[in-house]
Amino acid sequence: MNEDGATAGHGTLSRAGAPAPPGGGPRPDVAVLGGGVIGLVTAWRAAGRGLRTTVVDPAPGGGAAAVAAGMLAPVTELHHGEEELLELNLAAARRYPEFAAELAEFAEAGIGYRACGTLAVALDADDRALLRESHLLQLRCGLTAEWLTGRECRRLEPMLAPGVRGGLWIEGDHQADPRLLTAALLAACRAAGVRFVRQEARELLLAGDRAVGLRLADGERLLAGRTVLAAGSRSGQLAGLPAEVPVPVRPVRGQILRLAQPPGLPPLLGRTVRAVVRGEPVYLVPRESGELVLGATTEERGWDTRVTAGGVYQLLRDAHELVPGITELPLVETRAGLRPTTPDNVPLLGPTALPGLQLATGHHRNGVLLAPLTGEVLAETLTGGELPAYARSCHAGRFAPGGPGGGPADRPAGVRLSEVTG
Amino acid sequence: MNEDGATAGHGTLSRAGAPAPPGGGPRPDVAVLGGGVIGLVTAWRAAGRGLRTTVVDPAPGGGAAAVAAGMLAPVTELHHGEEELLELNLAAARRYPEFAAELAEFAEAGIGYRACGTLAVALDADDRALLRESHLLQLRCGLTAEWLTGRECRRLEPMLAPGVRGGLWIEGDHQADPRLLTAALLAACRAAGVRFVRQEARELLLAGDRAVGLRLADGERLLAGRTVLAAGSRSGQLAGLPAEVPVPVRPVRGQILRLAQPPGLPPLLGRTVRAVVRGEPVYLVPRESGELVLGATTEERGWDTRVTAGGVYQLLRDAHELVPGITELPLVETRAGLRPTTPDNVPLLGPTALPGLQLATGHHRNGVLLAPLTGEVLAETLTGGELPAYARSCHAGRFAPGGPGGGPADRPAGVRLSEVTG
Repeated sequence: MNEDGATAGHGTLSRAGAPAPPGGGPRPDVAVLGGGVIGLVTAWRAAGRGLRTTVVDPAPGGGAAAVAAGMLAPVTELHHGEEELLELNLAAARRYPEFAAELAEFAEAGIGYRACGTLAVALDADDRALLRESHLLQLRCGLTAEWLTGRECRRLEPMLAPGVRGGLWIEGDHQADPRLLTAALLAACRAAGVRFVRQEARELLLAGDRAVGLRLADGERLLAGRTVLAAGSRSGQLAGLPAEVPVPVRPVRGQILRLAQPPGLPPLLGRTVRAVVRGEPVYLVPRESGELVLGATTEERGWDTRVTAGGVYQLLRDAHELVPGITELPLVETRAGLRPTTPDNVPLLGPTALPGLQLATGHHRNGVLLAPLTGEVLAETLTGGELPAYARSCHAGRFAPGGPGGGPADRPAGVRLSEVTG
Repeated sequence: MNEDGATAGHGTLSRAGAPAPPGGGPRPDVAVLGGGVIGLVTAWRAAGRGLRTTVVDPAPGGGAAAVAAGMLAPVTELHHGEEELLELNLAAARRYPEFAAELAEFAEAGIGYRACGTLAVALDADDRALLRESHLLQLRCGLTAEWLTGRECRRLEPMLAPGVRGGLWIEGDHQADPRLLTAALLAACRAAGVRFVRQEARELLLAGDRAVGLRLADGERLLAGRTVLAAGSRSGQLAGLPAEVPVPVRPVRGQILRLAQPPGLPPLLGRTVRAVVRGEPVYLVPRESGELVLGATTEERGWDTRVTAGGVYQLLRDAHELVPGITELPLVETRAGLRPTTPDNVPLLGPTALPGLQLATGHHRNGVLLAPLTGEVLAETLTGGELPAYARSCHAGRFAPGGPGGGPADRPAGVRLSEVTG
């Protein structure tokens, strides 16, 4: 365990100045702001390295993952110009089986990891042309994806609409259940001795040119050797963040529906089915439990988490076109969440230009997929290690005001002592 | 107050035989099974006639009205062959302003009565032809309904789809808020001294050829001078109902959505707007509060109150065709309720062939509209009066096994002593 940068005598001071660490424990090595999947996996992995870790969140286990479908889909989510993200996503997907097993052991609960594969289908000639292009890109990147005729698609999934014109069978794109994942991470954190402070944070505390913890909502200070911002789309809103540490994360709303499996009937689908309908992606993710998750809209509406008539209509219309039989299923939940999205759709991970402050946010559509890798990266950087090579694209300083060539993004991680130890 | 038929010494007996009236009061004159709008209005009006009244319901104030839109629409709901129901519905609609005022005084709360009128529109030539037929029927029945061009419709309601081809302006079809109505009736019942037993009823109690009360879920007996079945679509399921008293009420599911008004925007609609889209009626009922109620499906699915993907999809699709701007509104509730429907869509009101048993159920789509009239009719029959002439079509014995000509339906109410006093 690397105890650098920890000022002796740091602790949580009450307003009167008397030491009173929230939770009653000693000063944490790491304070993680945010108890969603990313904050929890960071805390769990940090604790696993022997760091005293505290998570600050009024309701740990919430966040965007509660709304996410949990697709682990590096291949189907590949877009032109995002090849760096592909490497990261593939690395995360490869870790999933082991991550799920390890977490299951620690938490004594599964995360609904299901190696079911994904079928991406086309409903008309335009869709088919787009899907053919995706296929070429996938093959160019050395990925495994098989072209199927409409008939072959329906042989795999008999409930598909008769109009399906063809599709891609991506046998390596699987799923996990984000709610089970969150619950398992909470349990694993508790088992690893992570402390929870059930409050909002009011501001980042600075001492000299260093982040030294968080001011909590009740006015108390939580001093910590290192502070990690893992507050999803709100990460950039924390008061006290200096201008030279931009956290350009914005909320991108996704609305999602949950359909239930009527008792006694076979599940409608055996694997994830997706398509692009009228330019909007739609997917149906069948859980082992029979639950069918239907998502998701992509909307820039600020921090508005309301479900709209239009969002639900669009999802039901597009999914109905794909799998008409969904009409019979009970609709048990409508919900909206906020993806924390960066300008390049790549997360912000690890040290910033401000010593003592690290980031774990900006995972956009890929928070569940990138959770194992995020935990691994942060465990490394929080113990003074470098940002691993596979995560270079996620450098937390790449949007800093130094601009192209001048920002920390262009320097290998770990060159500046303050960053390495930060 | 007519105290006939009450055997002296009747009371609630515990299993051990000792008197222990639920609620602690004296034996009620009337036990009403069901605390929905119909049960409550019956109890309120019965109490108003001086009858000691007890409502039996595990959760009074529930029932189908919590899901209903509350249209008071005798003119728009007129269908060929239902002219008798029209008379009843018109009589109820005429009573509404006074009923709302009286209830407001008793309950010290409004019921959202809104004299806003109704605009029924046509989206294509077929719809227009159907609407023209409705108009002819309405005029033949002496009702007020004005034909408008599409442009005139949009002048009334600018958010209507540009494709609207014409419509009917029915200035007398208004609305109430069924949830406010239920709450007001609950308050009025309490103010009038109605007692509530928060239990299910297990069976109808008989003594000789007479109904004498209810066996409650906890095994106790609630003895009452008269028992009223007002349990909505479950009214026919009560154990102990003799074969010669059929209560042919079945559940017809209606799914309904509630959209919210975003703060700072003007309401989308100023009055109820409805149409028949692809053969299915759809309506949008704007409350004073800004809430927009969007309904309703009509489905024969037994007692299944689940909301389905198909139901919500149909409602959103049809409403979107009518008023495209709904897509922007938050969707705040999806819910299904069960209309209690009789073979002829006319309610079952008043005495049955079984002395001591009366019915107040089977209101189908018209429970909210018919509430004032139901209270009036039952107050009359529960005090030994005859079924009022305007409610003859609602005779509770019309489906009795005597068959055409043989059942009580063909006899004027009040001819048989046991019925009159029952």
